[in-house]
Amino acid sequence: MSLAISSAYCVATYRCYDEKADFHKKATGIAVGLTVGSWTELPEARKAEMEKHLGRVVSVDVHEPSAGDPASARYADIRIAYPDINFSRDIPALLVTVFGKLSMDGRIKLIDLAFSESFLSAFPGPRFGIEGVRKLLGVHDRPLLMSIFKSVIGHDLPSLREQFYQQALGGVDLIKDDEILFENPLTPIEKRVELCMQAAAEAERETGQKLLYAANLTGPTFGLVEQAKKAINAGANALLFNVLAYGFDALSELSRHPDVNVPLMAHPSLAGALYPSPYHGIAANVLLGKLMRLAGADLVLFPSPYGSVVMPKEENMAIKEALLTTETADYIYSGDGATASANGQVPLAASFPVPSAGIHPGLVPLILRDFNGEVVINAGGGVHGHPMGAAAGGRAFRQAIDGCQAGIPLQDYAADGHPELQAAIDSWGIKE
Amino acid sequence: MSLAISSAYCVATYRCYDEKADFHKKATGIAVGLTVGSWTELPEARKAEMEKHLGRVVSVDVHEPSAGDPASARYADIRIAYPDINFSRDIPALLVTVFGKLSMDGRIKLIDLAFSESFLSAFPGPRFGIEGVRKLLGVHDRPLLMSIFKSVIGHDLPSLREQFYQQALGGVDLIKDDEILFENPLTPIEKRVELCMQAAAEAERETGQKLLYAANLTGPTFGLVEQAKKAINAGANALLFNVLAYGFDALSELSRHPDVNVPLMAHPSLAGALYPSPYHGIAANVLLGKLMRLAGADLVLFPSPYGSVVMPKEENMAIKEALLTTETADYIYSGDGATASANGQVPLAASFPVPSAGIHPGLVPLILRDFNGEVVINAGGGVHGHPMGAAAGGRAFRQAIDGCQAGIPLQDYAADGHPELQAAIDSWGIKE
Repeated sequence: MSLAISSAYCVATYRCYDEKADFHKKATGIAVGLTVGSWTELPEARKAEMEKHLGRVVSVDVHEPSAGDPASARYADIRIAYPDINFSRDIPALLVTVFGKLSMDGRIKLIDLAFSESFLSAFPGPRFGIEGVRKLLGVHDRPLLMSIFKSVIGHDLPSLREQFYQQALGGVDLIKDDEILFENPLTPIEKRVELCMQAAAEAERETGQKLLYAANLTGPTFGLVEQAKKAINAGANALLFNVLAYGFDALSELSRHPDVNVPLMAHPSLAGALYPSPYHGIAANVLLGKLMRLAGADLVLFPSPYGSVVMPKEENMAIKEALLTTETADYIYSGDGATASANGQVPLAASFPVPSAGIHPGLVPLILRDFNGEVVINAGGGVHGHPMGAAAGGRAFRQAIDGCQAGIPLQDYAADGHPELQAAIDSWGIKE
Repeated sequence: MSLAISSAYCVATYRCYDEKADFHKKATGIAVGLTVGSWTELPEARKAEMEKHLGRVVSVDVHEPSAGDPASARYADIRIAYPDINFSRDIPALLVTVFGKLSMDGRIKLIDLAFSESFLSAFPGPRFGIEGVRKLLGVHDRPLLMSIFKSVIGHDLPSLREQFYQQALGGVDLIKDDEILFENPLTPIEKRVELCMQAAAEAERETGQKLLYAANLTGPTFGLVEQAKKAINAGANALLFNVLAYGFDALSELSRHPDVNVPLMAHPSLAGALYPSPYHGIAANVLLGKLMRLAGADLVLFPSPYGSVVMPKEENMAIKEALLTTETADYIYSGDGATASANGQVPLAASFPVPSAGIHPGLVPLILRDFNGEVVINAGGGVHGHPMGAAAGGRAFRQAIDGCQAGIPLQDYAADGHPELQAAIDSWGIKE
């Protein structure tokens, strides 16, 4: 089928496992069934009217099991183009169209999405993005450093403030709430933001350094804007958000709301219910990559390949690519021969990748190599568990970053008058 | 660890697969890690303060692989009690607490949830429920019948109206929009609701029967209430909602909003990204059962075990149980010896189970047996594909229901002057 030039299409790629299915027939069934419903039985005159609504099979790549490997399975990667005209320009409509009913149809995983230029044009994307976040912090020449509160539940305001202050003293650029800290009588958001921002100012007088504090945005969906405003009015200069608990559209609306004018940090909470199975769900590069960026996340946390919560390296790199790339090839589907975007670039700011879990200073060279330096190094235990305390933990990371930027091997840099880094290496080693 | 009487707990049950893990240690790690963060190293005085925030291991059932079956795997069902005091009384907070980060921690699936009485008390549950829906329709003595539009995309208003009218003529109780019908210039919601409700009134003059039309509630999250009001003002007397594309909290808030005073029908769109894997995700009884009912769905669609989109029968029955049960044992966690609920019943109205996909009249006896008659029989192709047309398709289902209610074998009832049922049986057979 050739593509009607008059329509724009979003393209979903599925990986389907089946021992004997006719994958080409299955692809046609998807393209028709999830759009116009029926096709071959339509009268010709009706076909002419309906053609612009008809889904198209872009490609079907069948992978037969390898003869030598009894464990290898038969699967196909199927790409289907869905006309924009069929759905409104929001992520729920797109996801329900391309994977609503289909998600329940056997072993099928949504492994990629590409957007039409017109669909994409409805999304402003990250308001700050990497450049905007760097500008707020005044840091342009090095990777950023973030730390996470150690424990928060059951702690009172003075305790949180002290934890915050110690982290800030270590020279971190960002501090985020724990994602399981909700509205509670001990540390209500406006009080903890007020106190922590005071601690940030106090630390800045010591360190000369700005800091973003991402307060956890929680509570009823329809009250999220009010809750965000409450935090921002109290001084929050960033917000953390459990995107998947609320849906991508809530993030998308927050990111374009005039009153929510601070960077939004997306937490991957619940993502493990969706991406790890090879047979079901939504791949990490779509879930934590393309859709987070499309929905306007300025920073995106995801499981690092280094630590306790692991994700295979290639999935990590695919997320990174989705958050950073300016190449239109993976993002924009332009149909047969049509030009991609006017300026040939993805029209969305880049989101900061924040690989998380199990990060210690000895991993910094590896992280910077994997992420080409455009990354937020994010540590919890690697800061708080430092033998000389949390402030020293932050300094150890900053020293590791400085050493890497100067091209000096970590061990040498530590030995050269950087005892915090040395202590971190003694505790956790170096992995290159 | 004994439970502190002063706290109330919600309990999550996980199935974890691991060839050699110490599951008891893992359970303690979850109970501590997802609540207070650390425990053994706390000073005793601090422990006394923190105890009410500490998660508890309720049980760990380890299943060793069976010696005779090399394919059997080692797993454990782990139950953890989380103090209510740690999270706000909304579903995002509960899910982020019990399965936010944990979802990404290896092979682990959330297979059950039980709520504390106090958590549950924050949820009014379904506003109408089974009784309320029956009352609106004036039907108390038989299962309900629903039909779905055949195809809607690219159709204009007169075409939709005609489809609606034919379905209504067949004596169906409910008609739902296709879940992939979004706001569009051809059939905007207020226009199609107005016309379809006129068609409903017209059909009622023929059939003497009331009908609920569930219009698809779509669009921006923060505009859902306004969109619902638009549909209701145009005459919609029910709404369809793609819950998982927006998160459970959106449904929960809609269900308790004073202006959204019509039954809410939950569509399982995207659910297949979450429930089918044995190793990851959220089990169907939680996802499409307990949480939908908690969030206030009056009717819940889910894949039937009969048709093309299949779900194993026991998962179906677990969803049914979660939607219907009045037994507190599965729902309410009361800790050590405390009484469950005051009146000993789940304090939520029951949600109508709507097993969907592949339903034809010959399946009615089986469905009524499986669901004890408290069910909405929902058909698409089984109505529209009837050889005598959609109105006859509806009538065939109603005849099948009547026959079953009268205790007459379907074939005999068809032969006794019910040609529509006979034609359906000739097309699709009987499965008992």
